[in-house]
Amino acid sequence: MIDGPCPELGWPSYQQTTVERWQHGQHTSQLDYIAEEVPVVLVYNGVSHVVMLTTPTNLEDFALGFSITEGIITSPQEFLSCHRHTRSKGIEISIKIPDERFVCMTDKGRNLTGRTGCGLCGASSLKQAIRQPKPVKRGITLSDRELMLALGKLREQQNINLLTGSVHAAAWATPDLGIVAVREDVGRHNALDKLIGWLLRTGQDPASGFVIVTSRASYEMVQKTASVGISLLVAVSAPTGLAIRIAYECGLTLIGFARDEQHVVYTHPSRLTHTHYLI
Amino acid sequence: MIDGPCPELGWPSYQQTTVERWQHGQHTSQLDYIAEEVPVVLVYNGVSHVVMLTTPTNLEDFALGFSITEGIITSPQEFLSCHRHTRSKGIEISIKIPDERFVCMTDKGRNLTGRTGCGLCGASSLKQAIRQPKPVKRGITLSDRELMLALGKLREQQNINLLTGSVHAAAWATPDLGIVAVREDVGRHNALDKLIGWLLRTGQDPASGFVIVTSRASYEMVQKTASVGISLLVAVSAPTGLAIRIAYECGLTLIGFARDEQHVVYTHPSRLTHTHYLI
Repeated sequence: MIDGPCPELGWPSYQQTTVERWQHGQHTSQLDYIAEEVPVVLVYNGVSHVVMLTTPTNLEDFALGFSITEGIITSPQEFLSCHRHTRSKGIEISIKIPDERFVCMTDKGRNLTGRTGCGLCGASSLKQAIRQPKPVKRGITLSDRELMLALGKLREQQNINLLTGSVHAAAWATPDLGIVAVREDVGRHNALDKLIGWLLRTGQDPASGFVIVTSRASYEMVQKTASVGISLLVAVSAPTGLAIRIAYECGLTLIGFARDEQHVVYTHPSRLTHTHYLI
Repeated sequence: MIDGPCPELGWPSYQQTTVERWQHGQHTSQLDYIAEEVPVVLVYNGVSHVVMLTTPTNLEDFALGFSITEGIITSPQEFLSCHRHTRSKGIEISIKIPDERFVCMTDKGRNLTGRTGCGLCGASSLKQAIRQPKPVKRGITLSDRELMLALGKLREQQNINLLTGSVHAAAWATPDLGIVAVREDVGRHNALDKLIGWLLRTGQDPASGFVIVTSRASYEMVQKTASVGISLLVAVSAPTGLAIRIAYECGLTLIGFARDEQHVVYTHPSRLTHTHYLI
């Protein structure tokens, strides 16, 4: 059995354990790496707001990214301070934001637990559920080949996933540099929030590159990406109809099923240039 | 571009559209099926509680399963009535529960939007985040071969996924019958809640079979499965450390990476019998 966490020593991102594998009629015991899923509570100005189950890495990036993409603050400058505290049941992130933002936040009455597949603030009516991002700018132009090269380099930089086979990644790439930064998490929205936090913290221009996510493109993956002005999102798996409509309306190029030698363009294909092949 | 939904005609589970596919250097336009993601608000005794993004099928099963696995009601008998209403921004499910349950529910102050990867009620402190299910009973004994046969039959019964390639499934199976019922959803927790709703509605014995999910086994997949007394959960992908610990503590057999000719047993292997092969 896998050990419980030892908060005194901090919360790990993964653990090594012995498991029983059955393969082609044979049983073997073998060492395996298991990804952890740690409750992280975000506390704004002293008030608990949300508990997320996360991979406990890059939590400051996560807190900044979440605060921005969920509309709690409107610029990184409003993220006044952020401290991490290890607790017996998880990790607490204490965030200080301006009073006027804090007041807006509590007015919305949002209060929820986010699990690994989730990364959002709550709403209890249909009217609150879908947020339409502002239109994105022109941004980059990307060739099929540049996209393929970036995709090909992503896997080797998914460090936790290489061990555990069970965490998502979100990556920032530019047409000329390829993959620039990768963030990982058991939750796909968390991985994207960590990446967006990194992007804002390091002062990258959101119009200078694109995002690759190793998951599906559901509505809020598009909403989060567009909310900071990124114009192109590549998902390794499928998009939903709602994600496609939101991407179309805000001008974001949405690409899905992006794998080695193929991809599908769902919206705004004008940002893609086609490489000509001599076959 | 994919059309917006037409609420007058109901919300579809998927749509057909033309997409631009790039493959091996060639562009082609082709017809593709896109899964929808529809906001569904659950309204208890006239009060909006939660908005989930779902595949709009089997929503009565979903409402019952969610109400039980999230501890809003304690038995199917407390699910007094359920009606579906089509709205301009999604679907409303009006549920009637006993007053004493409704009072408990509002006391918790839960209020949130669940997205496709999510399926839960909120909590804002670390103490509320993790719920330990009661111990499960002995339940079934399953052979490697019976598991393999059930897994082999699942894909062909994932009707929406066969078209769209982008929705999860949760299936109920028994050692002798194999797959008995399948429920699909863009969210893995929703698919499991739909299946559990079906299980309870049709009066199946939770101790007589097992659940297969086509996703990872995160904490709440284990919590939901064990909460209704099911003793064995098979995930096609990886479990998390937290899921393994919760499964171990409540006595549930947790199997991961279950594919054609292999699987890994993480907890309580005594429910598995080994088929002997003459090689």
